[in-house]
Amino acid sequence: MAPSLELYEKATESLPVKPNVTNVHGVPAVTDLEFENSDKHDKVLKVFRAFIADLCQQYNGGHPGSAMGMAAIGIALYKYVMKYSPTNAEYFNRDRFVLSNGHACLWQYLFMHLVGIKSMTIDQLKSYHSDKTDSLCPGHPEIENEGVEVTTGPLGQGVANAVGLAMATKNLAATYNKPGFEVVNNMTWVMIGDACLQEGVGLEAVSLAGHWKLNNLCIIYDNNSITCDGTADVANTEDINAKMRATGFNVLEILDGNSNVAAIANALIAARSSDRPTFINIRTTIGFGSAKAGDAKTHGAALGVDDVANIKKSFGLNPEEHFTIPQDVYDFFSDVAERGRAHESQWAATIQKYTEQYPELAAEFKLRVEGKMPDDWTKYIPSKDQLPTEPTASRKSAGIVGNPLGEKMKNFLVGTADLTPSCNVAYSQKVDFQSPELQTACGLNGNYSGRYIHYGIREHAMCAISNGLAAFNKGTFLPITSSFFMFYLYAAPAVRMAALQGLQQIHIATHDSIGTGEDGPTHQPIALPALYRAMPNTLYIRPADSEEVAGAFIVAIKSTETPTIISLSRQTLTQYPQYSSRDGVAKGAYVFIENEDFDVTLIGVGSELGYAVETKDILEKEHGIKARVVSFPCQRLFEQQSREYKHSVLKPRAGKPTVVIEAYAANGWERYADASFSMRRFGKSLPSKAAYNYFGYVPSKMAPKVKELVEEVHRDGIEVLRGDFRDLNGPLGVGFEH
Amino acid sequence: MAPSLELYEKATESLPVKPNVTNVHGVPAVTDLEFENSDKHDKVLKVFRAFIADLCQQYNGGHPGSAMGMAAIGIALYKYVMKYSPTNAEYFNRDRFVLSNGHACLWQYLFMHLVGIKSMTIDQLKSYHSDKTDSLCPGHPEIENEGVEVTTGPLGQGVANAVGLAMATKNLAATYNKPGFEVVNNMTWVMIGDACLQEGVGLEAVSLAGHWKLNNLCIIYDNNSITCDGTADVANTEDINAKMRATGFNVLEILDGNSNVAAIANALIAARSSDRPTFINIRTTIGFGSAKAGDAKTHGAALGVDDVANIKKSFGLNPEEHFTIPQDVYDFFSDVAERGRAHESQWAATIQKYTEQYPELAAEFKLRVEGKMPDDWTKYIPSKDQLPTEPTASRKSAGIVGNPLGEKMKNFLVGTADLTPSCNVAYSQKVDFQSPELQTACGLNGNYSGRYIHYGIREHAMCAISNGLAAFNKGTFLPITSSFFMFYLYAAPAVRMAALQGLQQIHIATHDSIGTGEDGPTHQPIALPALYRAMPNTLYIRPADSEEVAGAFIVAIKSTETPTIISLSRQTLTQYPQYSSRDGVAKGAYVFIENEDFDVTLIGVGSELGYAVETKDILEKEHGIKARVVSFPCQRLFEQQSREYKHSVLKPRAGKPTVVIEAYAANGWERYADASFSMRRFGKSLPSKAAYNYFGYVPSKMAPKVKELVEEVHRDGIEVLRGDFRDLNGPLGVGFEH
Repeated sequence: MAPSLELYEKATESLPVKPNVTNVHGVPAVTDLEFENSDKHDKVLKVFRAFIADLCQQYNGGHPGSAMGMAAIGIALYKYVMKYSPTNAEYFNRDRFVLSNGHACLWQYLFMHLVGIKSMTIDQLKSYHSDKTDSLCPGHPEIENEGVEVTTGPLGQGVANAVGLAMATKNLAATYNKPGFEVVNNMTWVMIGDACLQEGVGLEAVSLAGHWKLNNLCIIYDNNSITCDGTADVANTEDINAKMRATGFNVLEILDGNSNVAAIANALIAARSSDRPTFINIRTTIGFGSAKAGDAKTHGAALGVDDVANIKKSFGLNPEEHFTIPQDVYDFFSDVAERGRAHESQWAATIQKYTEQYPELAAEFKLRVEGKMPDDWTKYIPSKDQLPTEPTASRKSAGIVGNPLGEKMKNFLVGTADLTPSCNVAYSQKVDFQSPELQTACGLNGNYSGRYIHYGIREHAMCAISNGLAAFNKGTFLPITSSFFMFYLYAAPAVRMAALQGLQQIHIATHDSIGTGEDGPTHQPIALPALYRAMPNTLYIRPADSEEVAGAFIVAIKSTETPTIISLSRQTLTQYPQYSSRDGVAKGAYVFIENEDFDVTLIGVGSELGYAVETKDILEKEHGIKARVVSFPCQRLFEQQSREYKHSVLKPRAGKPTVVIEAYAANGWERYADASFSMRRFGKSLPSKAAYNYFGYVPSKMAPKVKELVEEVHRDGIEVLRGDFRDLNGPLGVGFEH
Repeated sequence: MAPSLELYEKATESLPVKPNVTNVHGVPAVTDLEFENSDKHDKVLKVFRAFIADLCQQYNGGHPGSAMGMAAIGIALYKYVMKYSPTNAEYFNRDRFVLSNGHACLWQYLFMHLVGIKSMTIDQLKSYHSDKTDSLCPGHPEIENEGVEVTTGPLGQGVANAVGLAMATKNLAATYNKPGFEVVNNMTWVMIGDACLQEGVGLEAVSLAGHWKLNNLCIIYDNNSITCDGTADVANTEDINAKMRATGFNVLEILDGNSNVAAIANALIAARSSDRPTFINIRTTIGFGSAKAGDAKTHGAALGVDDVANIKKSFGLNPEEHFTIPQDVYDFFSDVAERGRAHESQWAATIQKYTEQYPELAAEFKLRVEGKMPDDWTKYIPSKDQLPTEPTASRKSAGIVGNPLGEKMKNFLVGTADLTPSCNVAYSQKVDFQSPELQTACGLNGNYSGRYIHYGIREHAMCAISNGLAAFNKGTFLPITSSFFMFYLYAAPAVRMAALQGLQQIHIATHDSIGTGEDGPTHQPIALPALYRAMPNTLYIRPADSEEVAGAFIVAIKSTETPTIISLSRQTLTQYPQYSSRDGVAKGAYVFIENEDFDVTLIGVGSELGYAVETKDILEKEHGIKARVVSFPCQRLFEQQSREYKHSVLKPRAGKPTVVIEAYAANGWERYADASFSMRRFGKSLPSKAAYNYFGYVPSKMAPKVKELVEEVHRDGIEVLRGDFRDLNGPLGVGFEH
């Protein structure tokens, strides 16, 4: 029997007309019902919800409300609809699932346990909110743990990650699938609460999903209409269904999301055959079963001993029993693992035949599955003598170094936040990642096998989607993004999530420093480097010339568990082929121009290295001061070197001062220098050179200040600088001094 | 005659049906046409566009395309619709105008010149992109300059600023207007291009504008469908009109935005009488007049000498003449200034009568207009003996200190990104800022005079909207926001814009550090303080107990041109009434526990100060090491102190080591300390205390490491620490070490 469709229709027909609820439109034909409705759902729902209540009560904390509210959705998804293999969570062609409302993690953990993910034992479940340091049940799902696709928590990120996961599938499918051989055809499901589409990053991401017609993406909206502040109406009364339709989504709605498993499952199945991404708006009750059901109080706190007991009583369960899962509940899910193994075998058989018929493509695909990049990538990196020697903007150098890789490496997905002409990441013969339909509609050149991605003016989604691309299967894709460095502040929450998850990415951040010029202070980063230099597992590299740009790319490609930001100039930079070194970049800092008999060490950084070299020359010629120059493209890489190496570069014991020259806030350089020419204010709208002049980056003016410092140290000893970091630029420029 | 309505109707009737263009709906009655259509428009448009082309050609750069495309919109707005006074740009009840697509600034500058804003001379216009350091024509509009309401540039911000400006009007009107006395009733107009509603912050903001039914807000969309990458279709094919309607906007559309001034003006006038915010979708041609019109090439580069000449020829202008504005073009705008003065007189007369009839209210209103806060605010700050002495979470202390101010100060607009129960900013007797209509629809308690703002889960818009509130008239409002500190990373681009503009705000950032506990690494900030400590004109204050919280509020309220982040703990903290000092907070750092005969200085920061005190005790009792303790809530404030004061606190010349204890990345502390107990990795999901333990914040374990350091210095001299900053925690925890 298949009463589910009927139930589904019933539920949707009786929708009330409220300002933010509309009736269902655009339901695709539901033809492929894969499950029988079951009278066991009721029992499973009760046991599930009671267990969640117990888990939160145990340590008197956590998020019970939505986990309980979403129970029926979980049955539909984990038991009936999702294609995955509990005994092999890494099965390549599995459906991807993202819990964007990560605080509801207990919901995911408990379903993972029920379907037989081995590591997710009862003991592990009970470690939620405990002080067990090896818990697999952190307060939000974490990618390191079996069965978790991405780390979620900061709201909205998961939606964007899911868009990236769905793109990954589309791109692989368009590249490797052949008639009769769907080697990749998985769905991506993403669960959201009332928050994820309030957050800008979520809204940016769904615009792109609609634009790209990612029909392998389904957003499941746990619409309990409750947020921390109470009814969601307090801050949100828009017509979400109409909005999602306008954004290009197929929209379905379920009225009774608390118990109508069949209706939910059928809607999910319908999503599989939609021609657009699907948005399923499911009405649920937060904390279903609790005396406080429907109240924000069930969101982020345990329900209380009495309430938990009463829940069980009202469910016909024994209030004295805790953490109880009867055998028939396990039995209910017992077919899932077997079905999963069947998916795997089927896929393995497909791959085997595919390998016979398309051996070359299959070999390449195998490499992708293994997350390996062809190891001949190094040959596309130009050698030093192939690089320009005339003054060159480092954003141009980055194009010279990176674009051959963009062209040749199929794992590179190269994107831009609408700055193709400025960021120079458009490689030769690029094909855009676009829906093939768009070609007909708008005459745009692109399809799903395209690897050049126009993210639009959506820096945050660009990077959050890249996290999804990278998380699809580590190494299968290497996402490249590009924008002005300043706008990586918009994207920072996503870059942080990449660092936290160990996801490799390369961010081509052009127009760094005040050198970006006329666009003015709004476009000139001052404090942003301090963020990225402090961020764990992140490389912020400022190469000074083309050779250092080559070094930055090599480091970035080799850093397979780290996002790298390559920070580049808009303006032309002097090239130093006689001094600069790609190997030096790999060490974070290196001696650029040595002078054994030195009075001062000048640290030059990226686009401002030239100022250090020029200042050194003036110091020697006009002031009789001997300076050595250190090029310092990356603090993090330098920190990873031995103490011996570090001392050989900075010579801190020589009793001579060290001065850093960089047009950013000094914060962090105090570890390596005694004084700085740095920015204590926001920048100014002036042509590049004039901006540097305005803020005192003029070698003939800097040299005397360095001389003064050298003389002071000569007179009073190096200890005079202890606890007296010198901001040599002093207060300058308009605006508010820091 | 009034042919404008007819023209308007004609334009809208003939709309083509394209996927992302729909016909007009919901046009309100246009009853109040304030202008005559004119045959002079054609001449003005030509002269205007040629002038823009000249300005960009002069220094071969800049953004001509949209400035030329938007010319007709400018005539409608500056000549016919906007209520303002060119000879007194600061007239209080003026309509506010925001150029969210700030790169089109020449458009604004040139209209400012034409309508008679005195400072905007021809010479100033010609300084665009020059190296003049006192130019009033930076590459994006800046708030410091006459006639500019907010600094824009980073896309999307302006939309949110405009929402804040419109809220400001609503709140003042609801608070001070009386029947027959509309002392505040201005409109807010915001111009956007194709980017601002791709950006998440813009999307968050419009959701709120629709929710709040801000019918005094009009978004003018310069829909030229071109972005840097070419056709906007490359990354955006949604139905923007349907989307905006779903978001709660009245949507109008103009087909011929290049020349039909009358149609545009009527649509703008219609916006004045809408019951909802209005979105006017205006079709224009980027670079109108250029041979490259309609092409992205006109966006961000000069058009070329030949093109500029040809533009003039085709316009019937003399290609040999540059920067020419005929007298009749000036004459066309000559009535604007006079009308502006009439607006002013009218308003002054209203205020005078209002003052007679409502003297008390008028006195209060006058104070608001002058941007002054009642100076009795200090009496609401509790004295030390009114503060708790038992262990108290500093987020709770912040409620104790701040909420009486929230209740009493009418200039406080207190908001939260859906964290009312966690952030404790809900003051007694709070009334929500809501549309009064919502009260009927959803039963919510609120109206426009309410001062408690539910921003929803939209941290970025919360802070960008706050910028608009603060910019309405400096001092009239003091916006307070609240969220978890981690999510001020989402909001960072907006906080930065506040700092850049000198806009006062107080951000109540709770759940700081790893002490936030179970929510795990996604919610535990590590690198974020480095950003805010490096950001010019920003105060990041971490108070250690209730007394320091009081100090933080006092500093924040007195810092009238600076945003302040008060960083607070979720967990309870020991109170130190015997040591802690609000005056000490004002100095950034102060001696907490002195010991003249010390071996080591321990710096304790905010939520981790207690670890420094405990470590000091153990050092003394168990290791015979004498430690002094410095409380260091704010680096920026400390930097503003004299060298003498700084030395008295840190005693850098004493030859003794200094160790900082903080559960963040060490970056920046190197200026003050030789070693740190700090975080080199992301955090971990554990209960608060367990998280601290896990990462080594255990006084009994820290003390021996400090002892070792002291002994090393004793043995080898203080110079051994030069260039050898010590990360005493070492590598710890899961994940990727930095």
